[in-house]
Parts: sequence; C-alpha cells; structure tokens
Amino acid sequence: MSGNTLGKLFCVSNFGESHGPAIGAVVDGCPPGLPLSEADIQAELDRRRPGTSRHVTQRKEPDTVEILSGVYNGITTGTPIGLLIRNTDARSKDYSNIEDTFRPGHADYAYWRKYAHRDPRGGGRSSARLTAPTVAAGAIAKKWLAQTFGVQIRGYMSQLGEIPIPFVNWEMVGQNPFFAPNAGIVPELEAYMDQLRRDGDSIGARIEVVAEKVPAGWGEPIYDRLDADIAHAMMGLNAVKGVSIGAGFDAVAQRGSEHGDEITPEGFVGNNAGGVLGGVSSGQPLTVSLAIKPTSSIRVMRRSVNRANEPVEVQTLGRHDPCVGIRATPIAEALLAVVLMDHALRHRAQCG
Amino acid sequence: MSGNTLGKLFCVSNFGESHGPAIGAVVDGCPPGLPLSEADIQAELDRRRPGTSRHVTQRKEPDTVEILSGVYNGITTGTPIGLLIRNTDARSKDYSNIEDTFRPGHADYAYWRKYAHRDPRGGGRSSARLTAPTVAAGAIAKKWLAQTFGVQIRGYMSQLGEIPIPFVNWEMVGQNPFFAPNAGIVPELEAYMDQLRRDGDSIGARIEVVAEKVPAGWGEPIYDRLDADIAHAMMGLNAVKGVSIGAGFDAVAQRGSEHGDEITPEGFVGNNAGGVLGGVSSGQPLTVSLAIKPTSSIRVMRRSVNRANEPVEVQTLGRHDPCVGIRATPIAEALLAVVLMDHALRHRAQCG
Amino acid sequence: MSGNTLGKLFCVSNFGESHGPAIGAVVDGCPPGLPLSEADIQAELDRRRPGTSRHVTQRKEPDTVEILSGVYNGITTGTPIGLLIRNTDARSKDYSNIEDTFRPGHADYAYWRKYAHRDPRGGGRSSARLTAPTVAAGAIAKKWLAQTFGVQIRGYMSQLGEIPIPFVNWEMVGQNPFFAPNAGIVPELEAYMDQLRRDGDSIGARIEVVAEKVPAGWGEPIYDRLDADIAHAMMGLNAVKGVSIGAGFDAVAQRGSEHGDEITPEGFVGNNAGGVLGGVSSGQPLTVSLAIKPTSSIRVMRRSVNRANEPVEVQTLGRHDPCVGIRATPIAEALLAVVLMDHALRHRAQCG
Amino acid sequence: MSGNTLGKLFCVSNFGESHGPAIGAVVDGCPPGLPLSEADIQAELDRRRPGTSRHVTQRKEPDTVEILSGVYNGITTGTPIGLLIRNTDARSKDYSNIEDTFRPGHADYAYWRKYAHRDPRGGGRSSARLTAPTVAAGAIAKKWLAQTFGVQIRGYMSQLGEIPIPFVNWEMVGQNPFFAPNAGIVPELEAYMDQLRRDGDSIGARIEVVAEKVPAGWGEPIYDRLDADIAHAMMGLNAVKGVSIGAGFDAVAQRGSEHGDEITPEGFVGNNAGGVLGGVSSGQPLTVSLAIKPTSSIRVMRRSVNRANEPVEVQTLGRHDPCVGIRATPIAEALLAVVLMDHALRHRAQCG
Repeated sequence: MSGNTLGKLFCVSNFGESHGPAIGAVVDGCPPGLPLSEADIQAELDRRRPGTSRHVTQRKEPDTVEILSGVYNGITTGTPIGLLIRNTDARSKDYSNIEDTFRPGHADYAYWRKYAHRDPRGGGRSSARLTAPTVAAGAIAKKWLAQTFGVQIRGYMSQLGEIPIPFVNWEMVGQNPFFAPNAGIVPELEAYMDQLRRDGDSIGARIEVVAEKVPAGWGEPIYDRLDADIAHAMMGLNAVKGVSIGAGFDAVAQRGSEHGDEITPEGFVGNNAGGVLGGVSSGQPLTVSLAIKPTSSIRVMRRSVNRANEPVEVQTLGRHDPCVGIRATPIAEALLAVVLMDHALRHRAQCG
Repeated sequence: MSGNTLGKLFCVSNFGESHGPAIGAVVDGCPPGLPLSEADIQAELDRRRPGTSRHVTQRKEPDTVEILSGVYNGITTGTPIGLLIRNTDARSKDYSNIEDTFRPGHADYAYWRKYAHRDPRGGGRSSARLTAPTVAAGAIAKKWLAQTFGVQIRGYMSQLGEIPIPFVNWEMVGQNPFFAPNAGIVPELEAYMDQLRRDGDSIGARIEVVAEKVPAGWGEPIYDRLDADIAHAMMGLNAVKGVSIGAGFDAVAQRGSEHGDEITPEGFVGNNAGGVLGGVSSGQPLTVSLAIKPTSSIRVMRRSVNRANEPVEVQTLGRHDPCVGIRATPIAEALLAVVLMDHALRHRAQCG
Repeated sequence: MSGNTLGKLFCVSNFGESHGPAIGAVVDGCPPGLPLSEADIQAELDRRRPGTSRHVTQRKEPDTVEILSGVYNGITTGTPIGLLIRNTDARSKDYSNIEDTFRPGHADYAYWRKYAHRDPRGGGRSSARLTAPTVAAGAIAKKWLAQTFGVQIRGYMSQLGEIPIPFVNWEMVGQNPFFAPNAGIVPELEAYMDQLRRDGDSIGARIEVVAEKVPAGWGEPIYDRLDADIAHAMMGLNAVKGVSIGAGFDAVAQRGSEHGDEITPEGFVGNNAGGVLGGVSSGQPLTVSLAIKPTSSIRVMRRSVNRANEPVEVQTLGRHDPCVGIRATPIAEALLAVVLMDHALRHRAQCG
Repeated sequence: MSGNTLGKLFCVSNFGESHGPAIGAVVDGCPPGLPLSEADIQAELDRRRPGTSRHVTQRKEPDTVEILSGVYNGITTGTPIGLLIRNTDARSKDYSNIEDTFRPGHADYAYWRKYAHRDPRGGGRSSARLTAPTVAAGAIAKKWLAQTFGVQIRGYMSQLGEIPIPFVNWEMVGQNPFFAPNAGIVPELEAYMDQLRRDGDSIGARIEVVAEKVPAGWGEPIYDRLDADIAHAMMGLNAVKGVSIGAGFDAVAQRGSEHGDEITPEGFVGNNAGGVLGGVSSGQPLTVSLAIKPTSSIRVMRRSVNRANEPVEVQTLGRHDPCVGIRATPIAEALLAVVLMDHALRHRAQCG
C-alpha cells in the first residue's frame, strides 16, 4: 500500500529526488506481448522535458530513459519494467539559502513537519521533476491502450492565468510550447509570460485532458469509481488544486433535464457526464479538467518563518517554471493513461 | 484491493443494494480503546436519513445501525467493526418500468455495459442509499479524530442551483434541512425546491467541508497525497463532478505572489492552500469543495434507448431526491473523516 | 490493506467474535453471472459446523448463512456479497474464569499484549469459529472455479496425532467425522479421541488438500507466487504450524535428478512440484499439506501467569475441540479455493 | 497490489532479470531518520554473492548496490529508497540451447504457459539472482529493527541433503560457505558437495531462521497473521517447498499438554509456538524453518518436451548452484526482516 505507487493492477512505483543520482519507476502489471522500446517512452518524456522554451525552467536535463527489465527482444514479458532516468544538471548550490526557511505555498514547510529530515536540494521529493517517471509509465499505458482498444488520450491548456484559450483544433497543440490548441493566441501567451518573468512572479493554468474510444464498463460502483481514481491521480500531481469531470462545477447550476445526456440509437447527445456514469465509463469521451496553481518558487519577496519560527523574508532564485501548468499537459495525459489502463485490467479481471 | 473499500489502514468495505435485505460495512483498522456505541453512529446516520423533510426522498428508512463486532464493553478492540443496516421500506415495484431502459445521466446504462446482470431495484448498487454505511464508518473516524487530535469536521451547502448561499455561521447549519449556514436564505431555498418538484426536475448543489485542527505532516509526497486521497473519496461519492481544495479553480488566475500563503510566527496568513502543501497537511484548516450534479431520476420526459438500442422515452417516477446535494453534507464530512483517519494512521506508522 | 482481508482481487473481509452478535464476511470481486444461493454456501458450512460428532466441540450453532447483497435473481451481480451468520449458542459465563489469565499456547496472551483491551468471551476474535466466514467465502470460490475451469478441490486428514492415515479413496472422506480417506481406520481414531477426552488433553493433526485441473499459468514470479499465497492463507488458519507444497520437507534430502518431475508429451511424470513451478501453476494437481497443532484449551492443569505477571495454574473447561484438525479439512479447502480464485482473476487481468 | 511487491507498509518492489541490464528494488515506507549507507547494504549482499566458494555458481557478480534516492546526508528521509545492482557477468550464449525446451522442475515451463513471451537468458525473472534486491531491502529492515527494538535476526543451515547439521554455536555460521553452525561437519559437507558436482546433480537443504527480541504484539488475528506473512515471504523464495514455525510438523503428534508453552513470571518455558500465538508475536524468539528443493538446472540428462510438446532430452550446462540452499540463509534472514519491519509499522499504526 506504498504511498508512492499509483494503480492497483497496473502499478507505478515512483522513486527519486530532484538532485539525487537518479529518478525512476518500477511499472508492475503490464501484460506480456506489448512491443516497447525506449524510443516509445522517450517521445513522451521529450514533451515534458525542461529547457525547451524560454517560458519554462532552464535546467538542462536530457531525461534519457533506460529500460532495466521487463522487455525482451523488444516485447514486454509481463514482469516489472524498471525505468531509470539519471539526473545530470543538478546545481544544488542554488538552493542552499532556503534550506532553513519555508517558501510560502511550497511543500518544504509541510515536509519538514512530517519528516523532520528531508532533502532540500531542488525541492527534493516535492520537485515537479518527479513527474518524469509518471510520464514514462504513462507512455507504456498509452501505447497499450491504443493497441488494445484504440483509446486515444490528448490534452491541452485551456487557460493561462486570466487568459482563456479557445479550442481551435488538436493539431495546433503540438506546435507551441504552451500546448495551446490555438495558434493565434500564442503571441499573447508569450507576451504574458515574458512580463511575468520580468515581474519575478508565477501564474496558474487550466488543463483539459480527453480520452476517446474508452470502452463502456470500466470502473467500480463505490469508492474506486473510474472518476474517483482519475481525481486521485490528477490531484496527486504537483500544484493541482481542483479536478472536474464533464460539466464539473457547472453542474451545480444545471437542472437534471439539462445535465443528463440523452441517448439515441446513434449514441449520446452531449457529454455533461464527461464519460462516466455511476463511476463506470459510458463510452462517451472522458473529459477531465485540472486547475493548476502558480509556482511557489518566485523572485517576489515574501514573508515567512525559519525552522526556529522566527520571521524571515524569502525570495527564491534558482531555475524554476514560472507556470508549472505549461508542462502539465503531457503529465496529465500520462496520469489518465495509467488510471485507464489500471481499470482496463481490473475490468478484465472481474468481467472477463 | 477491493474496489468497494475506502482507505488503506482505516479500511471501510461497503456492501449492499438499495432494495436488498441489508446494507453495511466492515471497518477494519480502528485502533483499540475508542469508546464506541451504536448511538455515536446513529447520530450521524440520522443527519443523512431520508424522509426528514419534503425536499428529499420520501422513502421511510429508520437506518438503524447494529454493531456486529469489534466492540467489547463499549470500547473498540482493534478488530474489524461489522456494521449492519437493514433495508425496510423497499418498494421495488416502482422501478419495474425502468429495468429495460436507461435513464439519461444515470448509472444504469454503464452498469449494464459492465456487468450485463445487475440489480435494478431502486438503482441497486448505484443508489445514494449506499452512502449510509460510509456515514456510519465516518462517525467512527470523526470520533477517533476528535478524541485523539481534537480534529473538528464540519460541512455546509454553499450553493443550490443558481443560488449562492453566503456563509453566516456554523450554528445555522443544523437548523434547516439544507445544511445551509444561513437561516435568512432558507425560505428562498424552500420556494426554489418547491417549484422544482412541481416541474418534476432536479438541480445541482455545491458543498463545502472543513476540517480544523488537523496536525501538520499528514500525507504522502507523490500519488497518495492527502489532497489526492480526499479527491478520490469525494469524487467517489454519487453525483460529484468536481472537487477542489483551498483556492481550487480560482488558483488558475492567481499569481504566485497572491496564492502562496505567507507565514508569520503566529501562523499562516490566508488559506489558498486549503490546508495542504505538497500533498501533506500544513496545519491550516483543510477546505474542500464539491460540485454535485442534479439527480438523473426525474419526471421530465427524456430520450433514451432500451437494451435493444431502440429509441424510447423515459420518465422516472418512484421516490427520489430532487437534489442529492441536500443530503450530501454529512456524507462529505464522513468521507473526509475516513481519509483523515487513514492518513493519521499512515503517518503514525511511518513517522512514529 | 486491511489485515482481516484475504485476497487481492477476490477479497474476503472477515469480521466477528466468537460470542458477539454475529460473524460474517464481505466478499468483493466475484464476477457477475455466477448462479449462487444460500444453499450452495450452507452445504460447505455444514461440513465445518460444530456439534456434529462427539469428537468436536458440543457448541450448537446452526451456522445459518444469509446473503445480504451481491446476488439478484439467484445470480451474482459483480458487487460485494455480504454474508452474515448469527451467533446463537454463546455461553459466555464458561469463560469468565480465564479473562485475567493466559492459557499456555493460546492467543489470549499475545492479544492482550497487542490490544490491551480484548473480547475474551470464547476466545473472541481468536476463536476457530471465525473460520466459518472463510468457509462461506470459499464455497463461492469453489463453485466459480468448478464452473469456469472444472477445478476440483478436496481434502482429507492424513494423520491424527501419532496415527498416520493411509489414503484409500476420496469417497470415504465424507463418511466419517474425521475426513479420513480410510474407513477401516475410523474405529482406531475414535478410540484415540475418546481416550484423549478422558485425559482432558488435545492432539495435533495433518491435513492434505488437493486441487485438480488447475490451469497452468496462475501465479506470479516473485513474492506473490501461487505457492506463497497458499502458504499465507494456510498459515493464517488457526493452529497451523507448518505448510508444504508437493514433496515439501522431503525435498531437503532429494537430489535434483529425483525431485524434478520429468515431462512427456502425455504430461508430467510424478508431482514433487505439487503443481507449482517458479511460483506459477504447472497444470499438475496442486498438493498442499498442513500441520495443525493441538488445541490450547485443555482440562490438564498448566502453569501460567495472570495480567499482573503472578504465577497461576490454568485449566480450561468450556466446550472446545480436542483436535481442531478434525474440522480443518473443509476450511483448508475453502482457503485454497479463495487463493486459486484470486490468482485466476489476477491471471485474467494480466494475461487476458 | 503489484505481485512483485513484498510488504504492505514497508514495501519492497522488485524488478529485473538475470541477464538484463540491472536488477533492483524500490523500498517504500522506511521511516525517516535511519542512518543508512551503501556499505550497510553491501555487507549483506556480500553474504549472498555468487562465486565465493567452489560449492556455488561460478558467475562473477560484484553485486555492487547503488542507493538512488531516499537518503540525504547519510540519513533516510522517509521517501522511497531506489536500489540498483548492475548485472555484469551475463553469458547469455550458455542458455541458447534451452530456450525451446523445459527443464524438469524448472519455472520455464510454467512461465511459458503463463506469459507465452519470456526472457530465457539465465532463467530470466525466475533466477535466484533476483533474491539480491530482497537481501538489499532486508539489510535496511534489519538495521531499522536492530536500532529501534534491538531485534536480532540470524539463520543457519540445519541439513544438507541427508546430512543433519547439529547446532553448535552462532559464531561458526559465518566461518564456512554453508552457513553451518558447526565447524566440525564442514569437511563432510564439502566432500558431499564435491561428489555431487562430479555427478552433475543437485541437492536440497533445510534452513533455520531466528529473530530474537521481537516485541510481543506484532501481527493480526486473521489472514495477515505474523506467521502467515512469514510463510508467504518464505514460500515466495525460489525453491522453497515447505515452511514451518516453532514445532512445525512435529506439532501433529504433540498433545496440547506438551505443545502449549507454559508461562512463568520469568517468561515462557519452551518455544513450541516459535514466537507466535494466534498470529501475534509472543515475545519468544521467532523460529522459522524452510525446506529448499534441489536446483533443477543439472547436468544429468532428463526427459522433457519442447514447445511443440515433442519429447526431448534435457541437460543443463551453464553455471548453476548445485544446492541453492547454500546461499539461502542470508536471503531467508532478509525476508524475515522485511516481514517483521512491515508488521512493526502496522502495529505502530494501529496500536500507537
């Protein structure tokens, strides 16, 4: 029941710290027979990688993944897949000034209260860098879901700070560093981020993830519902403060006659359900929305305390994402893939 | 890894169907030494019970709980606590007309796709009636958390359909059937619900839950974060379409200099974090918000299909809550209590 | 990760105390579509029931099981199956004299050290009575395994105290209260037990369980091997002190050229493996052997201490099995069934 | 619920194949604050390492462990500990002749039936090489148990083939390659093994493991009993065919008045219980016994079939342990350490 494992049948056990020797994961439960290479995984890691535009952290990490086990002759064997990513560009000196103080909004205060002894270098275990093993595991799940059921999982940024990003099409998502489904708005987003960097501040974002062709029938009635496990995975991602499915918080003001998606012999009319009815997939597209808070590591000076509970002023230099939401899209896709594959296996166990 | 179990160290295994002989739960992991009686649990069940006002289902269920095990001489023994609630007012004939068709927005379509064979009586396993065992288990967790750490868990309705409900005070919550923290607005809510019933329609709601005096340090860094497990539990509740912590979706448009709660020697300034930093409790109040969709069982005629995928019109009679959000407050409190107790035990295991 | 749950996909959550209101289990993970009635379960419970011969405890318990959920129109629905057995013949006064002292060899000392507060009536949670819910759950697993794969699970007593019981045939097992596969030896066993009762003493036994037609391929390579999970289940049964598979402890003195079962196109030659190779079923019959210790509740006076650690003499009256091994056969069968069904589902999840 | 994970709160997730790039484990759940270095782990790995005498496999593996995470400034942080051991001496060509055929008594037949696609090099996942990560994880558990409770875990070989090895003292165990607690018998053991190698055959062994100073009160009443989890761990070790606790199979012929360990104010008299009463530790030494079968990879020619189910003769060359029992002692100690640490944490969670 390890706290650092995601999934019950497709299990991702994550390890590592931002500035330790390596990060990685053990992926247990992948069925045998899936063609899998490091290139399959690298492609997804490259989408999340730092340093790919001026709007994200300038830490240079190739994030090269090594498959240590579970694959023979390019095919999965059904045994655990060990995944290893070496840390290469760890500049721990940048963080020496914050070992004793707590950044407002940052995990370091809570970690200190929990563990007493922690690795402060680069945020240690709380660093968003630890999403890389999740993305690697998600690449496996994505491939298996696509091959086995034709499931397609895609995401995009729908809002950056105050700026809503209207959806134009999926093709545009891969053509800009924001994962914005809208090429026209990119100059505005770039100007917004440039100003933010000059201010030494950070900003939140909203991400949408969609899984299409999910078969009906995946999920459990109570507690481990499909939507519940999606919420768990998404809220388990750094900086996420809200998760919704389908109509989400808009459902509060909806009437039943408006919210309930009618069904015709050709399929559902509308998708307020977001693809889940009673905790079980309905066959509609699965639609998930995430609220991502602004990074807590900013240059703006802020009030805090040190370990002796004395008042201090805190300013975070180092290399940080001014908007962790920018790189969140591939991670959210990976999380959705892991949850769906887990439920695919659970469904297969119970219902054959 | 049973799908119907909530919690990893404080484990609630839920069973039952709406119109079967009984519903209940096995609660495993409660420490020995807690004074516990059926009256402790009944008090919480009575808050959730149907038939207590004209705004909720008129099914008459006393929801009397029997403790079958795990308590000796009024004190828990550390062994599993069996909880049993007999169903008494099951009118299965009301549902006979919907066995073959699917209500738009209802679990019955997805269940049929999953299981092929299902219990359709009163929604079977998908009925909100199955939240009663959750509330019973939550009563145990609430008591243990209060006795051991002084944790206080309370909730209220913050919005009914389009009507926001401004918070006045906690005392008012228990004085109206809506769990509204605002006595003045109750007549408006009642008129709204009366009209809705006349329309044969249903409506969504928003619920807030707050846990105070949660010690700092509960939670895990990655995947099984405290907020992730809260999101899992809350999204696992019938009809929930969105969950947020602290600033929630408002964090999208916040800057880091605004969102990050500053710390002074006297404590945190503000609570955008909602009590969780990096997945671990910070000592701030835990604040959770839920979006609840409108009930799918309504009198309004809707388009759907039957099991042969032929078009049909569906109208649901029977006895249903026109707003499941009205009774959701004690359930959400119970879920938060279960998650917190689970993490209290997990923290104790790892950090002593 | 509840300690009172057996199985990971077919999950049996056991609750109850010997002299509490009821005992039972929640069985989660049974696939939908299995015909199941209370009579199916009762038949197995009746094989384990107390009071059926003079050689077992004279407590009169009908052990009538009630199915509370998970079955609709005589067919499982895939939702949790609640099982309830009321305790009817609890004479708690018999045990009042031992609340403060510890029987040599009995759980009550260890329980007191663990929980401080425990239910001492009839052994409370440590009573062999708690094997009834296991047998009930095992009946479901047995039926599913038989219907789905033709698996047949049978057991017998192979030794009572010093008396080895040579196997004659399966038919004889059901024709005597010892589950002895040998009608000729029954008078000797009866005389042996009669003398033992006169002595106020108890005795150990050895049980064999065999599962035939188990498909090859069930199990995991490391840790959760099929044999490991069988060992866990069997050693988790009251009074078991040893578990072996196939050749068991005889393998110590075997050479590889003797132990390794040769394979021909017609199948395996011999079964030293006991049906498991590398943790995975081989298609050979699964053969398991259990060593069961003598009951610790005996009339013979023994030295012990009380809760103040003062020396006392202890003699246990009440109604006890002089050989818990006599009723162990159906329980061991049930445990093997639960483990096999769990692994059948796990295999189906991973390998389709 | 990953099948390759041992423990529920102290979780060891094992990965790797014999001839893949690396083997290792993620150890999740170790409390923060434990001094830990690679040298601590290496010392245990060196006890298990191949190639250290002529009686074991001549594969040369330094088994150098790298700690990838979870330790900062020489102290555990409470986050997952990644452990990596590179494979260096993999001669896969030795195994090319057996890819298509099945060694009698070997996992390869069952794996093929399970997975269809498997890594045959050096036994792949079924190799005893995969016990190295277990030993590494066990080193952490051993250290924590010793520091926190003074628990001491030691093991020895008590029988090699037909040769019983009388216990003389613990000091001798470390002074011979057999882990024999008896220096005088070593020449006989060496001669026995030399003859066996000349015969191209293999042999079984029996191992005893003892944990002293285990506090009373660890374990659960039903299913996840301490002895049950020990049996699971031990039977999960390659080649183990039997596990017993305390009197083990001798309990079959014992009377209750003989078996039940009397208690005096000074402590228990005898240890037939083997340190566990009712599934919970009693404070007596924990004594566990393992039966280990002979290796299936032998030079003796044997009958088998190939994947087309045609009769073949099989002879295994390559480098193999003629008695896997010889190196089993440190592994069994490690397994016992992992189970005990897991239950220590579980006990702490529930009983404070």
